Amino acid sequence: MLPMTTDVPRIQTVDILIEGSTITNIGENLPEEGVDVIIDAVGKVVLPGFINCHNHGAMSLFRGYSLDLRLMEWLSQKIWPAEERLDADAVYWGTMLAAAEMIKSGTTTFADMYFFMDEVAQAVKDSGMRAALCQGLLFIDDQGERRLQSAQKLFENWQGKADGRITTMVGPHAPHTCPPDKLKEVMDMARCFDCPIHIHLAETVEEVEHIFHHYGKSPVKYLYDLGMFEDHHCLLAHAVNVSRDDMYLLRGFRGGISHNPVSNQKLGCGVAPVVELRKMGITVALGTDGAGSASTLDMFEEIKATAWMQKNRAADPTAIKAYDVLRMATIEGAKALGLEQEVGTIEVGKRADLILVDVEKPHLYPRTDICALLAYSANGADVDTVIIHGQVVMEQRRLRCMDEKEVLRKAQRAACRVILGQQSEFPI
Amino acid sequence: MLPMTTDVPRIQTVDILIEGSTITNIGENLPEEGVDVIIDAVGKVVLPGFINCHNHGAMSLFRGYSLDLRLMEWLSQKIWPAEERLDADAVYWGTMLAAAEMIKSGTTTFADMYFFMDEVAQAVKDSGMRAALCQGLLFIDDQGERRLQSAQKLFENWQGKADGRITTMVGPHAPHTCPPDKLKEVMDMARCFDCPIHIHLAETVEEVEHIFHHYGKSPVKYLYDLGMFEDHHCLLAHAVNVSRDDMYLLRGFRGGISHNPVSNQKLGCGVAPVVELRKMGITVALGTDGAGSASTLDMFEEIKATAWMQKNRAADPTAIKAYDVLRMATIEGAKALGLEQEVGTIEVGKRADLILVDVEKPHLYPRTDICALLAYSANGADVDTVIIHGQVVMEQRRLRCMDEKEVLRKAQRAACRVILGQQSEFPI
Ligand SMILES: [Zn+2]
Ligand SMILES: [Zn+2]
Repeated sequence: MLPMTTDVPRIQTVDILIEGSTITNIGENLPEEGVDVIIDAVGKVVLPGFINCHNHGAMSLFRGYSLDLRLMEWLSQKIWPAEERLDADAVYWGTMLAAAEMIKSGTTTFADMYFFMDEVAQAVKDSGMRAALCQGLLFIDDQGERRLQSAQKLFENWQGKADGRITTMVGPHAPHTCPPDKLKEVMDMARCFDCPIHIHLAETVEEVEHIFHHYGKSPVKYLYDLGMFEDHHCLLAHAVNVSRDDMYLLRGFRGGISHNPVSNQKLGCGVAPVVELRKMGITVALGTDGAGSASTLDMFEEIKATAWMQKNRAADPTAIKAYDVLRMATIEGAKALGLEQEVGTIEVGKRADLILVDVEKPHLYPRTDICALLAYSANGADVDTVIIHGQVVMEQRRLRCMDEKEVLRKAQRAACRVILGQQSEFPI
Repeated sequence: MLPMTTDVPRIQTVDILIEGSTITNIGENLPEEGVDVIIDAVGKVVLPGFINCHNHGAMSLFRGYSLDLRLMEWLSQKIWPAEERLDADAVYWGTMLAAAEMIKSGTTTFADMYFFMDEVAQAVKDSGMRAALCQGLLFIDDQGERRLQSAQKLFENWQGKADGRITTMVGPHAPHTCPPDKLKEVMDMARCFDCPIHIHLAETVEEVEHIFHHYGKSPVKYLYDLGMFEDHHCLLAHAVNVSRDDMYLLRGFRGGISHNPVSNQKLGCGVAPVVELRKMGITVALGTDGAGSASTLDMFEEIKATAWMQKNRAADPTAIKAYDVLRMATIEGAKALGLEQEVGTIEVGKRADLILVDVEKPHLYPRTDICALLAYSANGADVDTVIIHGQVVMEQRRLRCMDEKEVLRKAQRAACRVILGQQSEFPI
């Protein structure tokens, strides 16, 4: 196993004992008496499950829908009209589709910001995943108040539910969709519920220009001046277009940044200064963003993309190392979500969120350096078995908590209804 | 199927008849009488096999070996000493390992430049793949003449062999490793054999500076002035650090560029101006480079990386489209190798080099846009069946022309011997 507990890679050949949802012993040749289920991990590497720190799961319904468009065109002409047609059923099956893809590529925990959060939470419960959920809070129409009520309902109905697998956050969408008075209200709500705040920040140049135009400062400074980084635990999605000054303002904030390199590249947003942020001691985790933009929820793609982009940005192959990006996908993600006491490493006392990666494959040979193979050569399909909260949710690539064929069929039907506005099929 | 024959995507539901190595009929409901083998492609998309235009297959032995080092440090302290210990057996099993990975991720043809080319050719023959091979020609020591002889032997022994699956090229390594008189000799050899030339070009800033220092011009101008682009068919690997002037010099040359974005990023070389080169009418194909630097030979990764990098470079999601990058991986590759009469599309009269991609998976749902799903969401493990030269070389992910376990074992042993200089195992 690669427990991700140390600053430098440490591979150990050990047994892991799980009781209930918890890892209760790690050691060589643990006794087999009284053990119900034994999983043979020969030829496999055991890792903590990946933590996807920024997603809009139900947007998997929009995967591949009118890509290769400019962001505002894509949003205004395609996504927003389709989102108008979203309903509870579509969000449930869209999130189940996302969960199926995430489990099959080794993700055990995800952070989600969307609408119809009751259905998102239900999908998390049903799929067996762990998630930190928030209602997206936008104040650009007359629905702001209704959304705030939904956020409160999400907290009341779901915080700590699904055997503790669900936690909740407060989710102001972004600086440019939340005016200062509303952000203050949201921050009060987060303090009252004792919840982290999940917000998009500095994703595009346009956002930075918009905030400068309206407030005469950068988006980071805007949130800083509102007091957001004073005591709240914050999960900041993107942080691509941040200046050196912005980074100083962020230094020492509680929580972390979700770096989402695939989505950033596909939308042409730029390359986040991950190496610099990490050097300042800021926690930088990984996320996919919704499959509508990223097209994939496979964290191995984000791991690779992070390493590639940072090495190339610095014109230096040593800029970031394989083990660094694996940490970003595991323990750094747990820290960004405030779940580092629960998950992110393989340790006695932590929840049993584990993945078994099958390395008996040509693209994972020869065995010179396991971390390099996992970070640069593996992909989601190499994940053989997934355990979340002590429960085997995938075994030999078969999902055990959902009927995969049903999920595909229902998600396809929902996508047709939402995108085409009717029950017809795509012309393929 | 997606035949890649048209300028815009065209999906057809048809039967494909293969006789011997050739596609002899395409149409709806072809008669089944007299057909020996029927492959049911329901739930799958049939594509032309991918063409990997730049590889050093046996370098798969160095996958994951001392990565995260600067290029010159990596080469001089790690790779070159290990390459000194290479032997025929290691090159054979290293190339077989590469072939196994390539077939399993949908590649049917590759271009290879390396040493011990008899063994490389034998591995191509045994694996069932199609390849365009060349001896790497460096003139930096007293072995230049021997290498030239090997190049001639490769041509004489292997051109058109393995039932026509093997073609040969002449492979001057790079501008900075081949002085002008030797390049002239190599060009004469290419003309005499009527072979394409395969050369690295403008990979790093250091190379550009080196050539400027010695010849007072860019690497492209250096080759241009030697007459390389006058009538030879050229396969130019990388072309990352090329100026606007360089692009004008390249305009109209025969052959194509192999863009290798994963390796370029991992080594911090920069982002090739793919969009601009294509706008000039220059053929830009895709390659992986050796797995020593790229860590992967999965062309789906190159497809994704190309799209991501070009969109991000242009700060424009419309800069390159899904179908464009799929073309680069298929028909553009065939053109770059001079094999466009043989492969690269699905057409009657062409060789039957086909892949069946299983799209019944969560990460390939919903079915809104097949090209987008293939380019941005699929990965090598989605390839179910591979046919090369009419022969089924992989069926339901099982290799039929080699013993996969044996390849892994032999490659591991060779890697230990070559890297560690002895028959011991890596300490993992
Ligand atoms: Zn987002
Ligand atoms: Zn190369």
